[in-house]
Amino acid sequence: MDQATATTSKTAILLMHCPDQKGIISHITLFIHENQGNIIYLDQYVDRVEKRFYMRVEFEIDQFNIPEEKIYDYFETLLAKKYTMTFNLYFNDRKPKMALFVTKMSHCLYDILSRTDSGELKVEIPMIISNHLHLKKVADKFNIPFYHFEMNKENKVEQEKAQLELMKKHNINFVVLARYMQIISSDFIESYPNKIINIHHSFLPAFVGAKPYHAAHERGVKIIGATSHYVTTDLDAGPIIEQDVAKVSHKDTVKELIRKGKDLEKIVLSRAIYQHVNRKLMAYKNKTIIFD
Amino acid sequence: MDQATATTSKTAILLMHCPDQKGIISHITLFIHENQGNIIYLDQYVDRVEKRFYMRVEFEIDQFNIPEEKIYDYFETLLAKKYTMTFNLYFNDRKPKMALFVTKMSHCLYDILSRTDSGELKVEIPMIISNHLHLKKVADKFNIPFYHFEMNKENKVEQEKAQLELMKKHNINFVVLARYMQIISSDFIESYPNKIINIHHSFLPAFVGAKPYHAAHERGVKIIGATSHYVTTDLDAGPIIEQDVAKVSHKDTVKELIRKGKDLEKIVLSRAIYQHVNRKLMAYKNKTIIFD
Amino acid sequence: MDQATATTSKTAILLMHCPDQKGIISHITLFIHENQGNIIYLDQYVDRVEKRFYMRVEFEIDQFNIPEEKIYDYFETLLAKKYTMTFNLYFNDRKPKMALFVTKMSHCLYDILSRTDSGELKVEIPMIISNHLHLKKVADKFNIPFYHFEMNKENKVEQEKAQLELMKKHNINFVVLARYMQIISSDFIESYPNKIINIHHSFLPAFVGAKPYHAAHERGVKIIGATSHYVTTDLDAGPIIEQDVAKVSHKDTVKELIRKGKDLEKIVLSRAIYQHVNRKLMAYKNKTIIFD
Amino acid sequence: MDQATATTSKTAILLMHCPDQKGIISHITLFIHENQGNIIYLDQYVDRVEKRFYMRVEFEIDQFNIPEEKIYDYFETLLAKKYTMTFNLYFNDRKPKMALFVTKMSHCLYDILSRTDSGELKVEIPMIISNHLHLKKVADKFNIPFYHFEMNKENKVEQEKAQLELMKKHNINFVVLARYMQIISSDFIESYPNKIINIHHSFLPAFVGAKPYHAAHERGVKIIGATSHYVTTDLDAGPIIEQDVAKVSHKDTVKELIRKGKDLEKIVLSRAIYQHVNRKLMAYKNKTIIFD
Repeated sequence: MDQATATTSKTAILLMHCPDQKGIISHITLFIHENQGNIIYLDQYVDRVEKRFYMRVEFEIDQFNIPEEKIYDYFETLLAKKYTMTFNLYFNDRKPKMALFVTKMSHCLYDILSRTDSGELKVEIPMIISNHLHLKKVADKFNIPFYHFEMNKENKVEQEKAQLELMKKHNINFVVLARYMQIISSDFIESYPNKIINIHHSFLPAFVGAKPYHAAHERGVKIIGATSHYVTTDLDAGPIIEQDVAKVSHKDTVKELIRKGKDLEKIVLSRAIYQHVNRKLMAYKNKTIIFD
Repeated sequence: MDQATATTSKTAILLMHCPDQKGIISHITLFIHENQGNIIYLDQYVDRVEKRFYMRVEFEIDQFNIPEEKIYDYFETLLAKKYTMTFNLYFNDRKPKMALFVTKMSHCLYDILSRTDSGELKVEIPMIISNHLHLKKVADKFNIPFYHFEMNKENKVEQEKAQLELMKKHNINFVVLARYMQIISSDFIESYPNKIINIHHSFLPAFVGAKPYHAAHERGVKIIGATSHYVTTDLDAGPIIEQDVAKVSHKDTVKELIRKGKDLEKIVLSRAIYQHVNRKLMAYKNKTIIFD
Repeated sequence: MDQATATTSKTAILLMHCPDQKGIISHITLFIHENQGNIIYLDQYVDRVEKRFYMRVEFEIDQFNIPEEKIYDYFETLLAKKYTMTFNLYFNDRKPKMALFVTKMSHCLYDILSRTDSGELKVEIPMIISNHLHLKKVADKFNIPFYHFEMNKENKVEQEKAQLELMKKHNINFVVLARYMQIISSDFIESYPNKIINIHHSFLPAFVGAKPYHAAHERGVKIIGATSHYVTTDLDAGPIIEQDVAKVSHKDTVKELIRKGKDLEKIVLSRAIYQHVNRKLMAYKNKTIIFD
Repeated sequence: MDQATATTSKTAILLMHCPDQKGIISHITLFIHENQGNIIYLDQYVDRVEKRFYMRVEFEIDQFNIPEEKIYDYFETLLAKKYTMTFNLYFNDRKPKMALFVTKMSHCLYDILSRTDSGELKVEIPMIISNHLHLKKVADKFNIPFYHFEMNKENKVEQEKAQLELMKKHNINFVVLARYMQIISSDFIESYPNKIINIHHSFLPAFVGAKPYHAAHERGVKIIGATSHYVTTDLDAGPIIEQDVAKVSHKDTVKELIRKGKDLEKIVLSRAIYQHVNRKLMAYKNKTIIFD
């Protein structure tokens, strides 16, 4: 609940980036003001090395001159083309639809569902997808449809295809892998570019791949971490969204690292989802820009 | 899941403190070894200023010469009296019974129940008690009996009495106030000395009392915190168990502090419960000793 | 070394705040562009509750149409009055002059001097002032004039007067109290409003006043902290600039808290000086806005 | 200043590890008590997986029956052989001699020297060794002999030999590489096994090797770190002593990461030196055990 959600008005949220040029802020704010929009949030950032300009603007549109469904077009025609912008427009009264992938561990799943249930996370969850049945009982508690897709080497291609069809049918906007212990294929990933959020149970880029807590214990690190990131076709190498860490000591066994790490994982994943859902987050090349 | 729970054997856990004297460790470890106990954890601490000795020992008792139900007596007779110990003995196969008090906010409640559900937190919860009905639906999801005790100035004494009777009937071992927005009376507190865990939504001793996030915002702090502690009759002044903090900035509104603080609160409270339930925690005077 | 200092050009830095109104950003950026300034940093923040607008702009002035010494006047006449701004203008090639007050402990002093020496902290230090002689040897190592002002109840008024005169003579811009163990008078404080930075060895507002580590130990906290703030006439209650914390345990004696706290103190103080010297910091009412 | 240094007595510090067996603590404490030693610190740890026992004991020896110079022998004969111990014995009145290696950056050097100067770090520094002359002026400030060893591919072997001879001549006990930008040879490393402390400017094992801040920026991490470790012949892979981290954002340029990282580096290195000098640290296989 930031400044944006403090309003009870209907708002539009603009996320954009483009080559840095003079006059962009002026031009965009003028466009909003002239059309009777009321800006309630504006933050911008310029990457001086890449010479790229990023902005997030949220504005009330109750009195806006341009009808809601045409704002995108008008903005594209009048502004985006001139500045070669990449942009997106969202509305605060539309909850994005999320597909939630899990396997056997419940901590991230519970954390996400309890936040949704309390209203903190404004998202719809039309489906929980899993390659095992273990967490069906959790989905049932929250009355969320649970789909079981058993996965093995032979059926992977067709199962993923079936998952994608199901997601398409329900107009899924983005995907969360909440400790989903499967590598997903390039085809799947490319269907949701920068729209699949994963939680990796290490401080990336340390301990890429399987069993990071075992590797951390073996290496004798004094701090463990967790990393949420957008999934790309390069394993554990997509744009990082959030990271957090916890101190450990020589006393911590692998089991103890796993236990302590769970708290990091669920918080770091839920924060990433929050930023994504509240449109505070842009990915460009292999990095994220976060407006918070 | 520490070293202790790595065993599948039945274990006894001894928590003790006494005036510092020579030979305590030798004497206790000898007692265990001579009776065929196998020590799987031993940690001790000496407060040189207070001249006080603290120890936690966990030992397998499958082959123990003394029957389980008589270990307490033997230990008291043969060792505790000699060293003027304060001690307690627990067994790893008995789950403590916890009464959970809540009001309207669900984040701590969900965090505790999901940990219990996954087996991470080895505790029985025979009752959730609340002064409001808001969270009954959460209790229902987890099939835990929900008791509604409406509280006001007039009925407080009798309602607390009824709560205590209910707890006694179910052999409740300890109490957790998971954002329970009521001040509980001295009589209630004294029925469960160092057995009531509260979560306060500030970095104590800063911002004691009501509305700490509002006070933190007003003061312009750059870090917020949460504190779990045993409840004593002195408001927010009991022995501190766990604390954690998060960085904030001038951008954070009170609502944003509340949102960010919730994550601290639930983690800090659940950690305290974990330490308490796993017998890693002793309180003496106004402080806690934690063996982790 | 941020984006700003990455330039080798001469720059002006504008720090301003005013009641929130439409068009401020446009107006200011237009003023800079029209006069051939090149913006290399711009960040702004709106406090929606206080309805106040804050901005930091840094721009290259090598080609600026308005002579350096007249920019302030032009800006005031053409912009500041219209928007009722409070503002200040700085130039990146002028090092501010700092008076450094110390007593007996050297850790903050060394940290500041080593950063100045390495060029990280772009500040001139024409004087180190102390009520004791202990640290003269440190001042000597760095060839900084050391002034000894013995302080007692009787001479406090005249000694502070002499200090102020000395500082005036050297055109001191701001003051740093680097563990200076004296309460300074209102007259002194009011001579340098929001220009005296103090380090307090606790996580304010916890443990205001003397001996905070003793108080922290007595209270049994699990985290200690340090706070840098602007000095106001209200003890330890001025606008907070930076805070940081460290985990401690029941094992830590008061001496150990003091030792661990020193690292927090020096880092937190030096960060505050850095923000102040690099003009990334504004104070308004009892809070700070930090652009980093 | 821990419990140990709270005494004004002469003390011995025993660091030992051996295969876990029953009766070790009893046997050692009995040995100390029977000979009129007074234990002021005892901490032990058992690695249940490796079945290895570690202990640190500090005891006053003013009244000790065995002469100081013979304690090692007696202990070896009476105890160490029986339990196949690896052990060391230190005395609190003997400062270890440290050789300090630097190149051009002063932040770690200043941090170490200011701690030594204030008495916080009880160590003698008979020499600062560098492959450049930049920091001679810092050594001069503190009146520490500065030795310049220019290094290139041709002279490396003989220069290292000369360094080792110089160190031997001054009875150097351990080495600190305070951002020494040279890879040292196996021969050198093997002359000081687990006695060379390095600071690496990343959160190991992430970003091994050169230019870790550039790599961190390239990867878009949200947290940077620093790691102090004992040097082994495997680059950046020796036993980790201390790690710490700091949050960064998309706004941070490489230069800003370098600036923020310096604070981590100096604190993390100085902490490691403190643990080493105060004999709170053991390395076994590729890990450290820290008693703090």
